[in-house]
Amino acid sequence: MNRIKLLTLTWLFSITSMAQVMVDEGTKMLYSPNESVFLWFSIDGGRPCYSVSYKQQPVVKKSYLGLELAKDKHASKGLEETDLMEGFQLVDTKKSTFDETWQPVWGETHEIRNHYNELAVTLKQRETNRIMILRFRVYDDGVGFRYEFPQQPDLNYFIIKEERTQFAMAGDHTAWWIPGDYDTQEQETQESKLSEIRSRFHDAVNWSNSSVSVFSETGVQTSLQMKSADSLYINIHEAACIDYATMHLNLDDKNMVFESWLTPDATGLKGFMQTPCKSPWRTVMVSDDARQILASNLILNLNEPCEISNVSWIKPIKYCGVWWEMIVGKSTWNYTDDFQSVDIDRPRYRTAKPNGRHGANTENVKRYIDFAAANGLDQVLVEGWNIGWEDWFGHWKENVFDFVTPYPDFDLFGLLKYAKEKGVRLMMHHETSSSVANYERRLDNAFIYMKAWGYNAVKTGYVGDIIPRGDHHYSQSMNRHYMHVVKEAAKYHIMVNGHETVRPTGLCRTYPNLIGNESARGTEYEAFGGNRPDHTVILPFTRLQGGPMDYTPGILETQLNTWSDNKNQVNTTLVGQLALYVTMYSPLQMVADLPENYAKYADAFQFIRDVPVDWSESIYIEAEPARYVTVARREKGGMNWFIGGKCNEDGHTSNIKLDFLFQGYIYTCTIYADGKKAHYKTNPKAYTISKKKVKRGDVLNLKMAPGGGFAISLEGHEDPNVKAVGVEARDR
Amino acid sequence: MNRIKLLTLTWLFSITSMAQVMVDEGTKMLYSPNESVFLWFSIDGGRPCYSVSYKQQPVVKKSYLGLELAKDKHASKGLEETDLMEGFQLVDTKKSTFDETWQPVWGETHEIRNHYNELAVTLKQRETNRIMILRFRVYDDGVGFRYEFPQQPDLNYFIIKEERTQFAMAGDHTAWWIPGDYDTQEQETQESKLSEIRSRFHDAVNWSNSSVSVFSETGVQTSLQMKSADSLYINIHEAACIDYATMHLNLDDKNMVFESWLTPDATGLKGFMQTPCKSPWRTVMVSDDARQILASNLILNLNEPCEISNVSWIKPIKYCGVWWEMIVGKSTWNYTDDFQSVDIDRPRYRTAKPNGRHGANTENVKRYIDFAAANGLDQVLVEGWNIGWEDWFGHWKENVFDFVTPYPDFDLFGLLKYAKEKGVRLMMHHETSSSVANYERRLDNAFIYMKAWGYNAVKTGYVGDIIPRGDHHYSQSMNRHYMHVVKEAAKYHIMVNGHETVRPTGLCRTYPNLIGNESARGTEYEAFGGNRPDHTVILPFTRLQGGPMDYTPGILETQLNTWSDNKNQVNTTLVGQLALYVTMYSPLQMVADLPENYAKYADAFQFIRDVPVDWSESIYIEAEPARYVTVARREKGGMNWFIGGKCNEDGHTSNIKLDFLFQGYIYTCTIYADGKKAHYKTNPKAYTISKKKVKRGDVLNLKMAPGGGFAISLEGHEDPNVKAVGVEARDR
Repeated sequence: MNRIKLLTLTWLFSITSMAQVMVDEGTKMLYSPNESVFLWFSIDGGRPCYSVSYKQQPVVKKSYLGLELAKDKHASKGLEETDLMEGFQLVDTKKSTFDETWQPVWGETHEIRNHYNELAVTLKQRETNRIMILRFRVYDDGVGFRYEFPQQPDLNYFIIKEERTQFAMAGDHTAWWIPGDYDTQEQETQESKLSEIRSRFHDAVNWSNSSVSVFSETGVQTSLQMKSADSLYINIHEAACIDYATMHLNLDDKNMVFESWLTPDATGLKGFMQTPCKSPWRTVMVSDDARQILASNLILNLNEPCEISNVSWIKPIKYCGVWWEMIVGKSTWNYTDDFQSVDIDRPRYRTAKPNGRHGANTENVKRYIDFAAANGLDQVLVEGWNIGWEDWFGHWKENVFDFVTPYPDFDLFGLLKYAKEKGVRLMMHHETSSSVANYERRLDNAFIYMKAWGYNAVKTGYVGDIIPRGDHHYSQSMNRHYMHVVKEAAKYHIMVNGHETVRPTGLCRTYPNLIGNESARGTEYEAFGGNRPDHTVILPFTRLQGGPMDYTPGILETQLNTWSDNKNQVNTTLVGQLALYVTMYSPLQMVADLPENYAKYADAFQFIRDVPVDWSESIYIEAEPARYVTVARREKGGMNWFIGGKCNEDGHTSNIKLDFLFQGYIYTCTIYADGKKAHYKTNPKAYTISKKKVKRGDVLNLKMAPGGGFAISLEGHEDPNVKAVGVEARDR
Repeated sequence: MNRIKLLTLTWLFSITSMAQVMVDEGTKMLYSPNESVFLWFSIDGGRPCYSVSYKQQPVVKKSYLGLELAKDKHASKGLEETDLMEGFQLVDTKKSTFDETWQPVWGETHEIRNHYNELAVTLKQRETNRIMILRFRVYDDGVGFRYEFPQQPDLNYFIIKEERTQFAMAGDHTAWWIPGDYDTQEQETQESKLSEIRSRFHDAVNWSNSSVSVFSETGVQTSLQMKSADSLYINIHEAACIDYATMHLNLDDKNMVFESWLTPDATGLKGFMQTPCKSPWRTVMVSDDARQILASNLILNLNEPCEISNVSWIKPIKYCGVWWEMIVGKSTWNYTDDFQSVDIDRPRYRTAKPNGRHGANTENVKRYIDFAAANGLDQVLVEGWNIGWEDWFGHWKENVFDFVTPYPDFDLFGLLKYAKEKGVRLMMHHETSSSVANYERRLDNAFIYMKAWGYNAVKTGYVGDIIPRGDHHYSQSMNRHYMHVVKEAAKYHIMVNGHETVRPTGLCRTYPNLIGNESARGTEYEAFGGNRPDHTVILPFTRLQGGPMDYTPGILETQLNTWSDNKNQVNTTLVGQLALYVTMYSPLQMVADLPENYAKYADAFQFIRDVPVDWSESIYIEAEPARYVTVARREKGGMNWFIGGKCNEDGHTSNIKLDFLFQGYIYTCTIYADGKKAHYKTNPKAYTISKKKVKRGDVLNLKMAPGGGFAISLEGHEDPNVKAVGVEARDR
């Protein structure tokens, strides 16, 4: 036993009772590969518990594990509802090590190392004879663990009333949190001490969202980013949430103990399980370096490998679309103002009077296709192309869209032909209005239609309360639905970008056709009242942990009243918008502003034209939650690098040492920077563009304005005077 | 005003207050075409109300109408939840007469007259400006009325908390009722005074059903058959229940007033409405002759005409199948006993050990195909053909069947070929286990599969609690589902026979591919403990009002222990089983017993071979609820007649005057009668078969044993001595 281990044990004894550790044979311990993370497991009077430390600092104090079961009225015996919380004894232990490097279909890096030590403890509940396995994987940047239930005579079907997984915090950390809610994640993140959550909760709720279901004044969502007084960055989330309800965290704010709080369906019950089965991974990421939280692949690594054998059709997408003009209010999704409401199976559009403001009309869509073709964009999203938008929202209406009938002024076939000739695809849009009953019924038909007309990507939407009525956006049944859509889409070689769906948990590793999600507060809120400037330097720590976000950046005309009646202003500088293409990783990036706005800022727009959507390497240069994020990324399989920096309302100065550049190359460095007096509120559109030659080891000094950022492209050329080194090694 | 009308008004004044009738301008009155039924409508202090009389006898006393609304959290204004119950004034009245004769695709008669007088009153709710139309149709055998909601500025979406339609009875009638239940109709009918319902309720519930949800100790289902002390037969039901929850009746047993009680979904709410919309028809059938209740076409007439333009593929079906042997317990639906439970998407049958008792094995199915071919049956139902039956029931399991994968011992392709060569079809079976979420997801695929392999009929099943969990079998959403299945099936030219679905309300007129339903306690219960002998002489008055039932008669071997370990005995005589093919009208009739049992009673079986499943004429010769039913039917487009008589446990003697036979024909009359000492319990299989020649005007004297009946076939031949009369006129 080396010194580090001894120190850890010393700490351990200080936070758990000596007696337990010494006498209970159920106690097991495990280090991460580099020994920075330490896991302790034990059985305390029949109750399984664990703790986690990082470099001898407590991360999760002794916390209990278990599941509370509901009575199954269908069960023949009486034991099914005995909770899986106590009366356990250890019957088997397995330790192992895993080290594998895998290549994602798309991602921040071209390969990912999955290296962990594993502890699997098999527990037996004496009274019921039931077996439960707790599997822990200990990484250098955190821990994942899950419950597993093998098929067994006395545990076949069971109903989860509540999962009782605790995460006992070691202090009153600073947390970046949004209110726990069964139906929306579109809140502004709050920064507060854990002890302040309760008092700030009510005002933190996005009460105006189309579907709101908060459940506790100390309930928060994951991924939850925290920072301890000792500057430990701790993040709690989940991985591989399949056939299981989404987990929230409810805080006991006297003891600073979080406990899992699952999303119920209409019955109020939270999980209908059939063995063999398992919970998602519960994850605790930890580091003393905030950059490591962003660079971590723990969530992806805990997901299963890709299940799609042929992935050649899955490709990152840069796209524009008929969208922002409607969000801002200049044009409309609906075709007519004639209808009080619509019966989708008996539409009356032939005689309806057009309202003259319908965005998805043929001429306007052609304009976007031209724009995409001229600027190397892959696709054009068209929202409002299909009938029903006169009456799509706000009535818990089941039969809302048919997904196959275009509006009279949308020449589908002509536009598909036009786009094809220009080398551009149209992106499909399926707003469901959360009428899942309707979408499931029409899904096959909708996908066959897409396939027939050559669409390969769909943006789905789930605005409003779920139908089947009473169900919630993040319940087990809804999570099954989202996964069903992704799997069905894969059969048709269709990529899915789900909006208002469940927040992701790394499932894009297994199903990389899940090319993006919204599932958080996106750019659209800039037109509804605004996102705070720190919003996009929090999201990488929280929402993006589970997978990419279709944040829809690129609003260069930040002052909306210059071209519309909308009084809102985007709460970043113009350059801040450019930075997001690098700082907010996604293989699906919208070029969200209007073509005419990009024409006004053609020189700045060049960065958006240039920036890739797939990467070989990503290096987080500096990061602090809600303060700033700076990251350098190398384009997939190429020599060129791109750097983005984004900060909050305080501004930020960056010194970037270019030691990641390839030796033997000279780079043309184009720097898009905030103007000297730029400010997201008062002077958002002041920017400078400068070019210079740089090479490996050079340093860039950059200043971000309040609410601003910077964006840099580095185009590499071989230096005839220096021998190139390391290219092959770094880019297999 | 003639004398009858004066008398009616006299009665009317005696049961409503004179003042109202005299002063309220909202009072309207309407007679049926032959003036036997009289409807009175009024507005009492802003509340709409009505009454019904029959030949001057009160049927429904003054009863209020209205809807209680729920608060719509999505509504922008505040008025949406104002109940539609009071504050109404009359703003328009329309009276009209309708008389049309239509031809059903299949039915008890080859044409049906739809003759009624109509009163439509348009009401305006002063406070809210909302318009509600009450439409009454007055037939000679009853009344139908419904609520209609035109689209209007102040009524677009609304939520029904409860429908408040009253049916005030004029006395403590005898009623044949089953407990009101959101999830099952498979109870034995109770015969009691209305005042006795409460005390008998608990014992009347079928607590052992797979899904039970009773709601009130005086809640009963429709169709509800009653008989007044004055021998009026009164029946309350509904017609054309589309996109609306199924109605139950809750009795105020102090005042003998029924009120509608709709089936909720998981939210507890009962209707999500979008104008223009309407309720189903609420029906009150009435006659002083019980036979007219059975002969009535009121329910069918209140449904919309056929919506399927090409109906050539819809054909009545006589079928046998692999079913009774499993119900009785001799063979099994499941293939193996190896599995504790099944993951339908990862089946493991290839290595599973067959249990040796699987009914749907190739050899056994061939036996049934041979039997069908030899006896002129159209189809062979095969239950248990598809994987999943090891784990199909009792766990609220979502992913239960895939509807397309046969068991290893079921040679689907070989059997289809074998059947085709013999001129027989296989009938598909889709048990859903009430996992509607799963069925909707797989429905397209399942129907494509059926079409590909030449199936044209499917028996569906909904055993167990509904998924989406919390929903009920008869809610608005589930009624939408059943209708979706029927409509989708029609696209594939598939006929549907739904079991455990909602009780029918005449929708087979509009969608005649809805060829049958169970939706009541069927023959299967004879193997589970028994149906009372009067069961099948109640069903024609109640369950059959809405449409045909797949009752699965024909169990000639009534003593199950002669061929199985099942100790139960069918509670009819052997001949009683024959009678059901005539008394229980259905275009879909199973020949439910085993081939080897029919071989034992080949002479009696001849009647089942001969009896048609479609008719040109039906004449109810005698009827009394729970006592006896005798009906003569002429085969569709033919000369031959068939007569069936069935009675309860008391036995019955019938004198049948054959005045309906064609003049100019001599009939070979084959009489299948109970043996002299036959008794359903002690001597069920004693029967006689006799033949004689009869002609129009002859009289048959027949005796039914306790729990017995009779069955008669009349084969017509032209009488060379007498001129044939009237054939053309009666069979257009």
